[in-house]
Amino acid sequence: MWLRTRCDLSFEIEIPTPFVLMLRPRSGAQQWIAKEEYQLVPRVPAFEFTDDYGNLCQRLIAPPGPFLVHTAAEVNTADGVDRDVGAPFVEIQHLPNFTLKYLLPSRFCESDRFGQMAMTLTDGQLLGYDQVAAIEAWLRENISYEPGRSVIPVSAVEVNLRQWGVCRDLSHLGIALCRSLSIPARMVVGYLYNLQPMDMHAWFEAFVGGRWYTFDATQKTSEVGVHGGYVAIGYGRDAADVAVYNQFGPSVFPSAHRVSVELMTVTDEKMTKS
Amino acid sequence: MWLRTRCDLSFEIEIPTPFVLMLRPRSGAQQWIAKEEYQLVPRVPAFEFTDDYGNLCQRLIAPPGPFLVHTAAEVNTADGVDRDVGAPFVEIQHLPNFTLKYLLPSRFCESDRFGQMAMTLTDGQLLGYDQVAAIEAWLRENISYEPGRSVIPVSAVEVNLRQWGVCRDLSHLGIALCRSLSIPARMVVGYLYNLQPMDMHAWFEAFVGGRWYTFDATQKTSEVGVHGGYVAIGYGRDAADVAVYNQFGPSVFPSAHRVSVELMTVTDEKMTKS
Amino acid sequence: MWLRTRCDLSFEIEIPTPFVLMLRPRSGAQQWIAKEEYQLVPRVPAFEFTDDYGNLCQRLIAPPGPFLVHTAAEVNTADGVDRDVGAPFVEIQHLPNFTLKYLLPSRFCESDRFGQMAMTLTDGQLLGYDQVAAIEAWLRENISYEPGRSVIPVSAVEVNLRQWGVCRDLSHLGIALCRSLSIPARMVVGYLYNLQPMDMHAWFEAFVGGRWYTFDATQKTSEVGVHGGYVAIGYGRDAADVAVYNQFGPSVFPSAHRVSVELMTVTDEKMTKS
Amino acid sequence: MWLRTRCDLSFEIEIPTPFVLMLRPRSGAQQWIAKEEYQLVPRVPAFEFTDDYGNLCQRLIAPPGPFLVHTAAEVNTADGVDRDVGAPFVEIQHLPNFTLKYLLPSRFCESDRFGQMAMTLTDGQLLGYDQVAAIEAWLRENISYEPGRSVIPVSAVEVNLRQWGVCRDLSHLGIALCRSLSIPARMVVGYLYNLQPMDMHAWFEAFVGGRWYTFDATQKTSEVGVHGGYVAIGYGRDAADVAVYNQFGPSVFPSAHRVSVELMTVTDEKMTKS
Repeated sequence: MWLRTRCDLSFEIEIPTPFVLMLRPRSGAQQWIAKEEYQLVPRVPAFEFTDDYGNLCQRLIAPPGPFLVHTAAEVNTADGVDRDVGAPFVEIQHLPNFTLKYLLPSRFCESDRFGQMAMTLTDGQLLGYDQVAAIEAWLRENISYEPGRSVIPVSAVEVNLRQWGVCRDLSHLGIALCRSLSIPARMVVGYLYNLQPMDMHAWFEAFVGGRWYTFDATQKTSEVGVHGGYVAIGYGRDAADVAVYNQFGPSVFPSAHRVSVELMTVTDEKMTKS
Repeated sequence: MWLRTRCDLSFEIEIPTPFVLMLRPRSGAQQWIAKEEYQLVPRVPAFEFTDDYGNLCQRLIAPPGPFLVHTAAEVNTADGVDRDVGAPFVEIQHLPNFTLKYLLPSRFCESDRFGQMAMTLTDGQLLGYDQVAAIEAWLRENISYEPGRSVIPVSAVEVNLRQWGVCRDLSHLGIALCRSLSIPARMVVGYLYNLQPMDMHAWFEAFVGGRWYTFDATQKTSEVGVHGGYVAIGYGRDAADVAVYNQFGPSVFPSAHRVSVELMTVTDEKMTKS
Repeated sequence: MWLRTRCDLSFEIEIPTPFVLMLRPRSGAQQWIAKEEYQLVPRVPAFEFTDDYGNLCQRLIAPPGPFLVHTAAEVNTADGVDRDVGAPFVEIQHLPNFTLKYLLPSRFCESDRFGQMAMTLTDGQLLGYDQVAAIEAWLRENISYEPGRSVIPVSAVEVNLRQWGVCRDLSHLGIALCRSLSIPARMVVGYLYNLQPMDMHAWFEAFVGGRWYTFDATQKTSEVGVHGGYVAIGYGRDAADVAVYNQFGPSVFPSAHRVSVELMTVTDEKMTKS
Repeated sequence: MWLRTRCDLSFEIEIPTPFVLMLRPRSGAQQWIAKEEYQLVPRVPAFEFTDDYGNLCQRLIAPPGPFLVHTAAEVNTADGVDRDVGAPFVEIQHLPNFTLKYLLPSRFCESDRFGQMAMTLTDGQLLGYDQVAAIEAWLRENISYEPGRSVIPVSAVEVNLRQWGVCRDLSHLGIALCRSLSIPARMVVGYLYNLQPMDMHAWFEAFVGGRWYTFDATQKTSEVGVHGGYVAIGYGRDAADVAVYNQFGPSVFPSAHRVSVELMTVTDEKMTKS
């Protein structure tokens, strides 16, 4: 499906404030970015670099006064999320080097504390995809998804104690459980079509059967599989790595932010006439 | 200035053909990409990777039949090229690691063959920027710039022998001369506003005084400096690294390609209303 | 000073067990590795890769039975740790890209929870080196250093609550405090001459005044500065990134490990006669 | 087999001279470095970095006077070179990203000039390993291997014209021919046991059947295969990337250099007693 995504952030800046932004989706195996807009008002110099996870980040200094970041994209993404029941666990010795960092515990995913719990939750499952699917199902049934309720980031241990969370929190717990089983797992932030209420979203991916698969405990599943409409912006070990904006110095919260994801009805052919 | 760039490539493909494309300008010190379009018709899966030079490349298989690559961008770039007469030579021991590869000879820049010539051309110049400016001036006066005349890539040694070249050739010779003086130099491909005749362009950058400076022997200079309007797409050691498309298997030349660079008259404020 | 370091790890392996080892010190600004030994008994194929922090890691499968990892090195390292009272805080916009990851919270350094505490501890200090020195001094006075007491890794928050820790714990708290002040800080594991009792050691580095400086709250300081004798093996965000060995599957603790650091009395000239 | 390698370089330096050294073999799929020595006399600060090809390089300034670089290693390497007649050509779309750079023409391997010749030489061969083996055999029969005769580096085109070369030259021509067939090929410098006369050596690797294979037209082959004893120090596109030392400023040739490779008779068990 073709989606038009948009994210506008408005800040009121008091003193010159350094920012690192991570708002550029990249074309990859599961999505193609056909158009992209990225505007800063007022316009300031920005320097782009690629972080350790392959994300494109921009560094800049926001000047005092109103500061607007406008991003939009037209993206082709899958109608449905790939599922692959039975996809096998990849033994450590056969994991590609680039997945190894996603086995380690991280700020919000204390995988070193979940070994026993993960074994219990996945008891009887085939090693690999089925374990992750069991974790996802457990999260869906046991951790109450309460979008918008949380502001302060908490870790997987804390989420597991309080039994509720936002999308980020469910992902953190899912990631921690996967890693404790030696399955590489990573955080994804991005957009999701038809998310209720609309906002930035977070989910996770696990590496089984030789590739990354998408998991999202915040969305209902059914006999026919999980709907698609995911647009990835950033990847990382957890939320600490994939903030869409990091600002330094005195805290500056957006005075407003708007996120939208619309279905596009144009055909591929029409797009090229623009 | 704000520029709207466009590059359309049309191919007639006979058998499924692997391509690596390098057509995405990146936001950096000297330019900001506010909008970008990138379309493949028919749409095929494409995988993006970052090469050793920081360029974003896309791999894909073009299917038989007509195949169109459409790219466009709205870019803010400098009105004039930075000049810095007197900017000093950076001693090898103080060069950043990332510049070292640009000291080595490469396919089209046999810097190991130009030591004596470079010394002669820059005799009496201050070490650094002034040496590169002298090389650029020498190229402008001695190598006839004949856009469109050449098809087969030739190397700096060959360009120096025949005394004429396209933009790529003048850059190669300039780069080879710089490197033979231990000044890191790299090739840039991209767009140039008001280039006559309009096409993709190539120029070079040299690292002096702690940063990269732009040099382009194909353009006239004057008392008031060199005009700007440059939009960089790719960086590399020479043309071998920065082909906007590399196709493998039987040669497929574009049946048509169109490049345009237009001055935009909208203001920054207007852009964000779109 | 010249040091001879040695680390031998002995395992009793029951089933084939994947390992990632990180035991190779690298020559850098502060140390030179003149000789190095690295042996696996029995010998098994090992594949080396460089992680995101520049560490050289080896992947291998340990076979059932006794498995020995022997490493030794002859290293020249500084007699004293560099100090630079007054070295200034580097503003975010001037930090090199490679330091940015060391500003983020990580598994054992929840810097997002220490903002207020770090401000209080460093009240009145010049921004930069002096803040870090104040943090180090506070750790030395307030967190009881109890080598050998701890086995399970705990995080900076937990260390701060219980007020005691091993070298790793003091480092984690120091790092978390630095990062909360927007000072990049990273974990180092390695050897320290005259450490009591001898073992692997951990300390931290902070990036101020344009370079990394060493801090170690476990060691006494004096008017004349901190003694040297540090040999770095690995760098990372925290202990999760710099395990000297990571093994996967059922836990395998070393049945024995031996670490030694001896002062060498040979001169540079003698060394080359060997 | 276990080999003890040694390379000593002696320079007479007149003015402080920047060097980049590349003399550290790395443990990988085909070799394990059990011991390593690396000494500079007089000792000077050296900074290590990893280049684009994964090589460990050291930067330093050699002071006026005699300057000695001593390196030695004890290495386990294969008794025979892997051969795999029939290993298939890897289609471009299935090549790993890290091999793509080895498809491009480079300073000494003008693969853009060898398309027709490579087709002719490999006519009738199965695509893949057998093509490379045919190229290697052609080199062995048609390019006279004359170790020690050449000093100035020449390119594959030049080698092909004059029909003789040192090890480096035969490798360059082999690499250029492979690349022109869309087979990734790279240069290797290192040691070879029993090389006559003993010196640093160069050979090449081609990527077929999903991995790198070693080829060396300077060595005789037989029914029973090619002997082993190879120890790789550096990898690159061609000799420009893998100089064991690069020095800048006025040329400084080693006043002496000594290379030795000895067979070790110790067993694995004995080694660990040291």
